[in-house]
Amino acid sequence: MDVSVIVIGDELLIGQVVDTNSGDIARMITPYGWNVREVKTVHDDASAIREAIGDALSVSDIVLTTGGLGPTKDDITKAILCGIFGGGMHLDESVLANVNDIFRKRGLQMNELTRSQAMVPDACRVLPNDLGTAPVMWFERGGKVLVAMPGVPFETRHAFSRHVLPALLERFGDRSVIEHRTYVVVDISESALAEQLSEWEDALPAGFHLAYLPQAGYIRLRIDAVGASRDTLVGTLEELLCSLKKIVGDRILCEEDLLPEQMLMRLLNDHGLTMATAESCTGGNIAHRMTMLPGVSDVFKGGVVAYSNDVKMHVLGVKRQTLDAYGAVSEQTAIEMAKGASAALGADVAVATSGIAGPGGGSAEKPVGTVCMAVATPEGVSSTTLHLPGDRSRVIDRASTMALIRLVLALR
Amino acid sequence: MDVSVIVIGDELLIGQVVDTNSGDIARMITPYGWNVREVKTVHDDASAIREAIGDALSVSDIVLTTGGLGPTKDDITKAILCGIFGGGMHLDESVLANVNDIFRKRGLQMNELTRSQAMVPDACRVLPNDLGTAPVMWFERGGKVLVAMPGVPFETRHAFSRHVLPALLERFGDRSVIEHRTYVVVDISESALAEQLSEWEDALPAGFHLAYLPQAGYIRLRIDAVGASRDTLVGTLEELLCSLKKIVGDRILCEEDLLPEQMLMRLLNDHGLTMATAESCTGGNIAHRMTMLPGVSDVFKGGVVAYSNDVKMHVLGVKRQTLDAYGAVSEQTAIEMAKGASAALGADVAVATSGIAGPGGGSAEKPVGTVCMAVATPEGVSSTTLHLPGDRSRVIDRASTMALIRLVLALR
Repeated sequence: MDVSVIVIGDELLIGQVVDTNSGDIARMITPYGWNVREVKTVHDDASAIREAIGDALSVSDIVLTTGGLGPTKDDITKAILCGIFGGGMHLDESVLANVNDIFRKRGLQMNELTRSQAMVPDACRVLPNDLGTAPVMWFERGGKVLVAMPGVPFETRHAFSRHVLPALLERFGDRSVIEHRTYVVVDISESALAEQLSEWEDALPAGFHLAYLPQAGYIRLRIDAVGASRDTLVGTLEELLCSLKKIVGDRILCEEDLLPEQMLMRLLNDHGLTMATAESCTGGNIAHRMTMLPGVSDVFKGGVVAYSNDVKMHVLGVKRQTLDAYGAVSEQTAIEMAKGASAALGADVAVATSGIAGPGGGSAEKPVGTVCMAVATPEGVSSTTLHLPGDRSRVIDRASTMALIRLVLALR
Repeated sequence: MDVSVIVIGDELLIGQVVDTNSGDIARMITPYGWNVREVKTVHDDASAIREAIGDALSVSDIVLTTGGLGPTKDDITKAILCGIFGGGMHLDESVLANVNDIFRKRGLQMNELTRSQAMVPDACRVLPNDLGTAPVMWFERGGKVLVAMPGVPFETRHAFSRHVLPALLERFGDRSVIEHRTYVVVDISESALAEQLSEWEDALPAGFHLAYLPQAGYIRLRIDAVGASRDTLVGTLEELLCSLKKIVGDRILCEEDLLPEQMLMRLLNDHGLTMATAESCTGGNIAHRMTMLPGVSDVFKGGVVAYSNDVKMHVLGVKRQTLDAYGAVSEQTAIEMAKGASAALGADVAVATSGIAGPGGGSAEKPVGTVCMAVATPEGVSSTTLHLPGDRSRVIDRASTMALIRLVLALR
């Protein structure tokens, strides 16, 4: 099945909001062997929306729109859908009841604008939107389906996974077979890896495809395989992966598409260890990334964001002599931070960062991008200094990733 | 000027990577009165790329592509551009020198695949890519311009702002005038705000447009104005904004498009105060958001991620009796956390969060989404309990935002 996604909203085209809906939809659809052939983002403009829908219906089996359904005046999609699929609008009691219910729970007053959300085109079937007031609308014509969804990401994600995708699967079935495998590779550049794998890639049979997804600090290597029978496909895929692993060797950090923090949480659980963080330049980002994972409280005790030297000394026990002799940005300080976090927070392992994220604060000896990090485990302490490129957010992001990877390497 | 952006890459259409390039480009282009009329994301597929470029050249003055230029085999854009604009390929010495330079700095070995990046279509002019190896290529035909850029976000952002945008401005000039103003509004739903502003919005003159951008925890209200003369435009705009402010009143938290953490940093600087965080359910996200801001070290001392009760007691000094009597998720605990962070980290003000981000850990009395927060300032301590909807990441994000907003409200 070919799927087109149309993302509606001025805010996206002036760069005020980043579209995450199309990615969420793609991630949920791809495992069924369906192909998102294109995503188009258009203004809240009647002719642009109409044209995008017309084009999409001419090339794809399924068209999904997000956005353009809110109560405010910049939302005009419903009228356009009436124009395309025919008929007028009517008040849908199920939508009205849902709007009432949501307003009651939030303790808000219903108003005319909100009531207008319950008006839907006659030509559509309404699917539930459990988390918001805008209706999810299913249209069908000439064997093709269009589903209009709201633009608020958590509403769309929920409605798509719970209601729209199941209805689409029932309507179109799941025919071809597709497999994806992703390996996480560290310590090599994209082009060097590509050169290593060049022969292997050239010999890939039809239906197999290799893609490089460079991240800050590592490379995700994705192998896609499409075929008619799952058994044949998986057999061939496993053989190919076996030879790939021989080529890349122990630079493969993980044979699943996991984030470094997910690998770390798994290792901590496996070894029955608890963890703490001591962050200066990464400013809490490592702790934040760990605590985004459900269930992390079993292994994550907490962390200290030691931005000022006072906090490094008084909370983490870094010695004043160390700061004076080597500076806050030094492996010596990072080592004392890691040991101090482990002791102060009662954790078995700890990771510490201290660096210069920029744009200010650099010197000839320690330029912006210099990041010292240390890892403390029951086996001992290790440290390293990195020189990271890019702006502040990139240094913070990459330093956080490298610190997590260092702890993964120390524990595996 | 109408601009079309084409984003190339399989990884985007299976949802493995989120496109931020088109938003970055839009944000930089919009202030010049140019309009990103559409963004289209397509596969690394020759016919899809060719068709998207053809369509875009037929409707827009400027076509910008990102992605599809790396050294690896899934990148095919250059050959397609040769097909469209004619001519063959040649080795560009400036690109080769740049590739050599980047490899030398990173201590990497040059290889054949990387050398192939220096091959460029005869029909193009090469612009610099200071941060990466893929060339930036400028094509021109029939008064229209196409610029092909790499897909790696920081390379694209840098090359576009430093080289591509200046060249486009020189080529097409800056004619019409556009103004945007954004207000941050709190404590009201989108539809209630829209009802309040309905009359005001209906009376807007031609060229003026109001848009609602709901965020987790607040609403950004954007007013766009387009016209021929800056003086007239700004005069009318200021009058309209004056009447808008009378309607919305003190629910306007800020008259600039700032993040809550930016407002907070400004207030702390204005008042000469320092800040600390004590985070349980937000897990370091508040500290992370503060420390993403350059120059924050003047006002931000640090924070404690007190995920376990041990850390709450031993690092922040929360009393065991408080935890036993009221639980970790209580306003009493949040208050002791805020006071404890302020004392332990030597900061003038502190904010604390303790809650249940889910999916596990909820109870009938304290369901998932319950978040207690406290703010301590030299004037005293205040606390509140919120019930936030959504999944784990949404609860963490929204709780962080609400905590930052509470501190802004306490300090303004």
